[in-house]
Amino acid sequence: MKLLKDTLELITPTNEEVKNLVRNQWDGLVKPMGSLGTLEEATIKIAGMTGKVNNKIDKKAIVVMCSDNGVVEEGVSSAPQIFTKVLTESMTKGVTGVATLGKYTSTDIVTINLGVIGEIDDPKIINRKIANGTKNFVKEPAMTYDEAVKSIEAGIEAGDKLYGEGYDILGTGEVGIGNTTTAAAVLSALTGLDVDITCGKGAGLTDEQHSNKKDVIRKGIEKNKPNGKDPIDVIAKVGGFDIGGMCGLFLSAAKNKRPVVIDGFISSTAALCAVKLNPLVKEYIIPSHLSGEPGAKYVMDKLGLKPMLNLGMRLGEGSGCPLAFQIIEAGLYTLENMGTFESLSLDGDALVDIRED
Amino acid sequence: MKLLKDTLELITPTNEEVKNLVRNQWDGLVKPMGSLGTLEEATIKIAGMTGKVNNKIDKKAIVVMCSDNGVVEEGVSSAPQIFTKVLTESMTKGVTGVATLGKYTSTDIVTINLGVIGEIDDPKIINRKIANGTKNFVKEPAMTYDEAVKSIEAGIEAGDKLYGEGYDILGTGEVGIGNTTTAAAVLSALTGLDVDITCGKGAGLTDEQHSNKKDVIRKGIEKNKPNGKDPIDVIAKVGGFDIGGMCGLFLSAAKNKRPVVIDGFISSTAALCAVKLNPLVKEYIIPSHLSGEPGAKYVMDKLGLKPMLNLGMRLGEGSGCPLAFQIIEAGLYTLENMGTFESLSLDGDALVDIRED
Repeated sequence: MKLLKDTLELITPTNEEVKNLVRNQWDGLVKPMGSLGTLEEATIKIAGMTGKVNNKIDKKAIVVMCSDNGVVEEGVSSAPQIFTKVLTESMTKGVTGVATLGKYTSTDIVTINLGVIGEIDDPKIINRKIANGTKNFVKEPAMTYDEAVKSIEAGIEAGDKLYGEGYDILGTGEVGIGNTTTAAAVLSALTGLDVDITCGKGAGLTDEQHSNKKDVIRKGIEKNKPNGKDPIDVIAKVGGFDIGGMCGLFLSAAKNKRPVVIDGFISSTAALCAVKLNPLVKEYIIPSHLSGEPGAKYVMDKLGLKPMLNLGMRLGEGSGCPLAFQIIEAGLYTLENMGTFESLSLDGDALVDIRED
Repeated sequence: MKLLKDTLELITPTNEEVKNLVRNQWDGLVKPMGSLGTLEEATIKIAGMTGKVNNKIDKKAIVVMCSDNGVVEEGVSSAPQIFTKVLTESMTKGVTGVATLGKYTSTDIVTINLGVIGEIDDPKIINRKIANGTKNFVKEPAMTYDEAVKSIEAGIEAGDKLYGEGYDILGTGEVGIGNTTTAAAVLSALTGLDVDITCGKGAGLTDEQHSNKKDVIRKGIEKNKPNGKDPIDVIAKVGGFDIGGMCGLFLSAAKNKRPVVIDGFISSTAALCAVKLNPLVKEYIIPSHLSGEPGAKYVMDKLGLKPMLNLGMRLGEGSGCPLAFQIIEAGLYTLENMGTFESLSLDGDALVDIRED
């Protein structure tokens, strides 16, 4: 609990002064003010985090939190539980979606085992196993409060280590059969949003299975009565170790004053937990894509963030992050390399309306 | 007229069989079917165009059509007309937004002068000047029907040449003060959409100027009575040489069976002209971002295309294209390099619901 408490206390606001310096730098480039949209905003936001006008992304990683969910015994997923282990072990072989996109964008993949059922002895997978999966939240809390804290602190430690090693940006990913169920449960418990809104059909559920999935989430919330004002209690009662781990990673980013990128639905629900723990965290989070999972847009609304990509992706794993990294890096490059009005001996004020599209 | 006529006749549908082969290849990768969304769809679409399962993007360019618009004398833009020339000449210096993003993504910029007012003697700018800007469409047609055909054929020739030289993908860009006015006029004339919907405030117009811009467009349509069923007539009466040139580039892509990417509002209006000339063209067009210009979403609806990026950009020049290239290339790489169920000795059917996010 100490690491979590200290982390929450060490988070401070971003630097408005430096943000304004970067905003002014953009306004001096040969274009109408603000016309590069998110390219501008992302670089301004990062400058506020680091406190530096010029930022580079030389080292980047996606941290993949892997864990099983006891609730799958209620039939909420059509994929067998063993796939959590299979996919976790596939991460270091470089064959998963996020590993492939990671390779394409020179992004490292850091795989953390927080609670995968079975033995994993790949030394490249960081072993922070809390338990052999969570409990079935329809019958009892998914985990104890202490375990929830442990999962969050595992995420903080991972972030602290990576940012300490010089990573300029991190992305959040997860592997865990059943984790759209836990994410929907966490989202409903945190926000009061109806399960009809937060719970999607996923990739393979029939109408009947979807209806069962919603019932399961409702039962879990009813049974365990998570305290919506305490994200740790919510994660403990109806969440998962992966959600806790990602929540910790978001907190670490804010403490270390470095950017962290959201992937899809599960990752953004973890981001909401982190922001509820400390609202300043939001300033350190950059969204990537709008997941195809229907609850995703509601989390984004709650977070007040606007995803830059609209690709209908619903793979998870962190697969949206490498694509967002590319755009953020393009923004940093443009800020540094685009021509200024001054260099063209032009008056910027006259160009306000030059290109409206 | 012959080149245009021949081009329209030579366009054939994409290859459904090859598209299915690529679809099957995606479905064999370790992920739920369709869960990589647009990454999958874009590569399937390109395979349909080229008739090849494996496609690479080694050579890419953005073609920037530059031209002045007579209608600016009605005060529809707060930027001085001279900026068309300044920005056109800045393209080859590599300092514009699209040139910078082009450099970052190893994309060539091909600048074509279709009607920039004044003398341009940079040999790196292709001179296809039709006239010293268009006429003011409030008083008379922007150009003759023959000139509209000429502008379209200049675009076809540019595309034919570049695809012939081995460019795997092209993007469409433009420079021309006043071209959100002409694009809104073309869009309203083609679709019957109210000017209130198609005409945006741009980056710098006051409410009063915005209201004037709408009046100007309404007057132009009333005065010239463009035939909404004939995109060439529409371009001639209320469009611009840049819109004609981009329209031709879209047609060339379809004829050459190669992909072409839309940028923002003006570019997508040109795409709509091309699709109205031959509906098959749509199969060769990939959208990039949803422009911040309010009319943009209506053009996308009319085209039936869904932009992959939502960056609030409204710079034009083709600046959305390099960012879309990155995503398309990531898709092609993933298709080729991600692990298969077979390689993991897994049964793909069991993974349908493995990751819903």
